[in-house]
Amino acid sequence: MFKTVEWKNGCVRLIDQRLLPEEETYLDFTDSDDVARAIKDMVVRGAPAIGVTAAMGATLAGKAIETNDTGEFMAKFEKALETLSASRPTAVNLFWAIERMRKVAKTSLPDGGVDFTKQKLEEEAIKVYEEDLVINKKMGENGAELIEAGDTILTHCNAGALATAGDYGTALGVIKAAHLAGKNIKVIADETRPWLQGARLTAWELMKEKIPVRLITDNMAGHLMKKRLVNKVVVGADRIAANGDVANKIGTYTVAVLAKRHNIPFYVTAPMSTIDFETATGDGIPIEERDPSEVTNIMGGQRIAPEGVEVYNPAFDVTPNDLIAGIITEKGVARAPFKESLAKLR
Amino acid sequence: MFKTVEWKNGCVRLIDQRLLPEEETYLDFTDSDDVARAIKDMVVRGAPAIGVTAAMGATLAGKAIETNDTGEFMAKFEKALETLSASRPTAVNLFWAIERMRKVAKTSLPDGGVDFTKQKLEEEAIKVYEEDLVINKKMGENGAELIEAGDTILTHCNAGALATAGDYGTALGVIKAAHLAGKNIKVIADETRPWLQGARLTAWELMKEKIPVRLITDNMAGHLMKKRLVNKVVVGADRIAANGDVANKIGTYTVAVLAKRHNIPFYVTAPMSTIDFETATGDGIPIEERDPSEVTNIMGGQRIAPEGVEVYNPAFDVTPNDLIAGIITEKGVARAPFKESLAKLR
Repeated sequence: MFKTVEWKNGCVRLIDQRLLPEEETYLDFTDSDDVARAIKDMVVRGAPAIGVTAAMGATLAGKAIETNDTGEFMAKFEKALETLSASRPTAVNLFWAIERMRKVAKTSLPDGGVDFTKQKLEEEAIKVYEEDLVINKKMGENGAELIEAGDTILTHCNAGALATAGDYGTALGVIKAAHLAGKNIKVIADETRPWLQGARLTAWELMKEKIPVRLITDNMAGHLMKKRLVNKVVVGADRIAANGDVANKIGTYTVAVLAKRHNIPFYVTAPMSTIDFETATGDGIPIEERDPSEVTNIMGGQRIAPEGVEVYNPAFDVTPNDLIAGIITEKGVARAPFKESLAKLR
Repeated sequence: MFKTVEWKNGCVRLIDQRLLPEEETYLDFTDSDDVARAIKDMVVRGAPAIGVTAAMGATLAGKAIETNDTGEFMAKFEKALETLSASRPTAVNLFWAIERMRKVAKTSLPDGGVDFTKQKLEEEAIKVYEEDLVINKKMGENGAELIEAGDTILTHCNAGALATAGDYGTALGVIKAAHLAGKNIKVIADETRPWLQGARLTAWELMKEKIPVRLITDNMAGHLMKKRLVNKVVVGADRIAANGDVANKIGTYTVAVLAKRHNIPFYVTAPMSTIDFETATGDGIPIEERDPSEVTNIMGGQRIAPEGVEVYNPAFDVTPNDLIAGIITEKGVARAPFKESLAKLR
């Protein structure tokens, strides 16, 4: 199997997700600014994977600071964290992981000094990584209970091993756990324009796991639901507001509206670190607007629209909590009213 | 400007829509079986354009039959019509146009003989073509009255000049008429996977007309509606059942469901020839399933999914009449209850 992100010989090693499924290429990073650029350019993507990568990037940043002065260290470290923070605005796991690393530095520096802090940062990054693997497995188990034998599950974007530290993933973790439990499930994967995470990543992951998958264009989901070819929807999340509104890959909201019309349960799977209790509702979640070329060209290649055409390219949308049947976390499944149920899991 | 379809020097001349917007190439056809293949392969597409092309194809078929025996002529002519009929199953204009040509042959042969019939077939095909131009203009006028100054109109697929005999189109005819009436409108074009009619054709047509257009991926429509960036939806149709259920390009149903949730009026524009009074409801409309490669590769080029992945590729879906604010025809605008209002326009 592949590795999404790894701490290897003092480097951050990422599988280049821009090249999948055609090429399995790994890139090694030794500089935290390069890691920030890799997040921005989507070498790595998916909220939990971004969190893990940012933690490792912060470790690189710490290691590179050549001083024994704790004040100077912290100032330079903050600057590196700022660059990492600026890479992508929507996935909250990025800020959550950076905050963890900041706390470690602040706690370790006064008594332990710079070298000790560098060591602690590395330990913390590895902890973020290892925790994610455990959390994913637990989410998978919690979610699999909601899946019935023979279900056909529609998923949008990629919330698999490639979106997390590895192995399970979030939404695909639920699917993998249900599959391993012998529930004889099938998956329908939305291709997920413009970046085609569904076509390139989800289909690829599921085929590797020998889980039956059929690929559709995003605009086919409604037709399939109308034909009763979908029983459940399970997706991931980039940020969940305190009231259960969910920011996730563009198109998720449309799937949720369609699911509601067809009385198909719509589940979101995300670790507690994706829940942003500081943001009251989805209206407060910043939505990243990405480069128009993602829409006018396919993966930086084939052009599909006239030169000079204007485009919108929001990378995420917000699904309001009333369209959501449940939010599956490592601590349990939250249901409406979400403000209360999420707070209880905290 | 371009010509979608033309009867030129005894040939059917088609702009090759598979190559737009990169290349404006015209193909001349002298054989009706080749015309059938061109329809199947989507050199030409769009219900009214398919109807006009089939009528011209039938003319070619008649011309090619070398006999003075009216019985032999009719038998061979029927065979050619069968091949044309088998090209695509959903757009009813194909069958409507073929039926017109069949009637001309049946009426002209007994008294006029073969040569006279060949002449009559050509005249009929030109009539189908010229009528379509007039009808489109009338639909545009009828529809433009529903558009308010400053409206932003979302459209799906291409229901423009390229989907008809030329000039106006159906849904884009409404948009063009509103634009010419100085209503200061803007358009949002869904790219319309898998064949990208929106990105390749609609954006191109509107840019030629200098009508402001922004391109989005299909899965962005919901987000834009939620952000109140869309005031109206106007689409075309491939077949309308007697009760007003509308078969149109895959993804149309999803747009209609989203429009309903946001209280955005959803209009369908189609000539009376697209209304299939013989089919009671949308359930009776056959939905074409096209080649998987349309989903796994972009326009026969760039591969975007793993080798061997299974896909669904329905080319159309059915929007039930309860999601439709009005059906704009050349005879007026039908509104719910559609069974009655459409029958009245007949």
